[in-house]
Amino acid sequence: MVLPGITQIREAIDSELLEFTRARAEQLNAIDSHLAPVADALTDFITDGGKRFRPIFAYLGYLGTGAAPSEKALRACAALELVHVCALIHDDVMDGSDTRRKKPALHKRFEKLHRTNGYAGESEKFGVAAAILLGDLALSWSDEMLSESGLTSADTQRAAPLFYEMRAELMAGQYLDVLEGALASSDLDRSRKIARLKSGKYSIERPLQFGVALAGKFPELQNLFSDYGLPLGEAFQLRDDILGVFGDSALTGKPAGDDIREGKRTVLMALATSKMSDTSHSILQSALGNPNLDNSQVAQIQELVKDSGALAECEKLIEQLLQESLRALEHPALDTSVANYLREMAVAATNRKS
Amino acid sequence: MVLPGITQIREAIDSELLEFTRARAEQLNAIDSHLAPVADALTDFITDGGKRFRPIFAYLGYLGTGAAPSEKALRACAALELVHVCALIHDDVMDGSDTRRKKPALHKRFEKLHRTNGYAGESEKFGVAAAILLGDLALSWSDEMLSESGLTSADTQRAAPLFYEMRAELMAGQYLDVLEGALASSDLDRSRKIARLKSGKYSIERPLQFGVALAGKFPELQNLFSDYGLPLGEAFQLRDDILGVFGDSALTGKPAGDDIREGKRTVLMALATSKMSDTSHSILQSALGNPNLDNSQVAQIQELVKDSGALAECEKLIEQLLQESLRALEHPALDTSVANYLREMAVAATNRKS
Repeated sequence: MVLPGITQIREAIDSELLEFTRARAEQLNAIDSHLAPVADALTDFITDGGKRFRPIFAYLGYLGTGAAPSEKALRACAALELVHVCALIHDDVMDGSDTRRKKPALHKRFEKLHRTNGYAGESEKFGVAAAILLGDLALSWSDEMLSESGLTSADTQRAAPLFYEMRAELMAGQYLDVLEGALASSDLDRSRKIARLKSGKYSIERPLQFGVALAGKFPELQNLFSDYGLPLGEAFQLRDDILGVFGDSALTGKPAGDDIREGKRTVLMALATSKMSDTSHSILQSALGNPNLDNSQVAQIQELVKDSGALAECEKLIEQLLQESLRALEHPALDTSVANYLREMAVAATNRKS
Repeated sequence: MVLPGITQIREAIDSELLEFTRARAEQLNAIDSHLAPVADALTDFITDGGKRFRPIFAYLGYLGTGAAPSEKALRACAALELVHVCALIHDDVMDGSDTRRKKPALHKRFEKLHRTNGYAGESEKFGVAAAILLGDLALSWSDEMLSESGLTSADTQRAAPLFYEMRAELMAGQYLDVLEGALASSDLDRSRKIARLKSGKYSIERPLQFGVALAGKFPELQNLFSDYGLPLGEAFQLRDDILGVFGDSALTGKPAGDDIREGKRTVLMALATSKMSDTSHSILQSALGNPNLDNSQVAQIQELVKDSGALAECEKLIEQLLQESLRALEHPALDTSVANYLREMAVAATNRKS
């Protein structure tokens, strides 16, 4: 059987998302013409080139069982992206992030709409309210897209528990992440646990298992995908940590050193903290969470983190986790072509620049 | 067939919600012990005596078709309450409301947790982040509760489109409501349209139609329930408008005159504005949206609205809409006992003090 390549899968997911979103946008416009900015903003956000990691993993999980390519299954997998869209929109509100993918974050877009039109009340409050509601709408749409994939209700019902578990783990992980910032701790074990929850489970393990459940065969692949997904998710998150401090803003679409300004308690920061001199440590502590850091201060923190050896150790950890994850794929039950794609995805997820 | 009374239905819904929420709270605690405040807050919020209008209407829609009482159908109907829980939690964040049902709003509860524990960062920001995530969780749980009601997947799939439409209309209605405040218009037609969307469709028509779809028979009841639900929903919202300005805070659990401070553009306000002298109008305009109004200023606005005749006209409108809605129930296809319950619900919804 000839399987579609990853690029082809991504494009097919993009086109399913576009079709679904267009139909929903029409529904909004039919309710009231004042909803046009909501319909436009969600269409732009959803169709504007995310990496689609979660739907791709889900569809690879499906294909990994040897199930034949299916447009319906692909559509069900694409529904995971809408959960992610909600998470991103709400995350930007919670973090107060101004940009997403080099464009204004959604709450900023509606803040601007408010200001440009000279509306009454506070522009910022309007932007936040709109972004909360648009995230809710995306989350609600995720169920709708899953339910209307065209698969039998029995197929959908079988995969639904994984879908719900994934969402609960995502929101739990987000809360723990916010809490970790508030606890201002640099506990390495906790940071790694949260990384495992947010990225390992939510972004990789659960999507793959969701795909297996959709196919309805070879449930033994569920364990294999835990062994592949959890270390890879952690490696993915570690790459995020590194990009959040050292990333090239031209590639990430976020200001350089964004995580430092936001005071994120990442594994990278926990490693750096444990390895620093007291002087460096106090410089780092006063920089973490200071929204007004300038570029030279960010550069200073980058130097300190690099000099501590934390960056190198983080890279080493990523490599170890990647190898652990690749070893899990050497399993006779898994379709060979899909195993190759999963290798490709693993390398891409851990070596990315954005 | 002897049908359960409304109080009995409400209690059964309460107990389904309690059981579901307890199981989910355990799941959260199993993920991480730091999630205990999330589990507790959601349990308190969900089980703390809402009116359960939407699940009750949904179950009455189901019973109205002559379908036999069913615990599974009741559970599916109770899922609508979790959508409402999300809407309330997020609404309080968007409005900056401090209280809900005489207790601190959820974002305030987490703001306090942050302050009490001396966490790092801004308490307010932490509270908002937690409330956004807890609302997301409740919304996600609504699908889970529907999907796990025990009904066949065919039954669920048949009712699902109404569930999704209801949620989209809710979020659209919320956005239009926020926008209406920003437009600072006093357009009576638009206010009535939004009232129809938010309360008519979301709170009454769609829940009833959802119940009919669950039962899978007598689809002609769908139209009857539109004729009953839409005017009743508008009457319900008008009662809300009146309570928002004239309500007894000991009964509503919200500060007196809350809608004035929030600058809500309600039908009551649109009526008042159209009937006032220029002097009264400018007093009203400067009070609307002023969060610092004291009790005597609130009392002055109450007097102005009353003197304008808007209060009396609003009461008259409620009565007309109530009668219109009751007339729709005189239909041979509808189970007689259920028709009586729906009369009881209509009167309760439009005469309530809270």
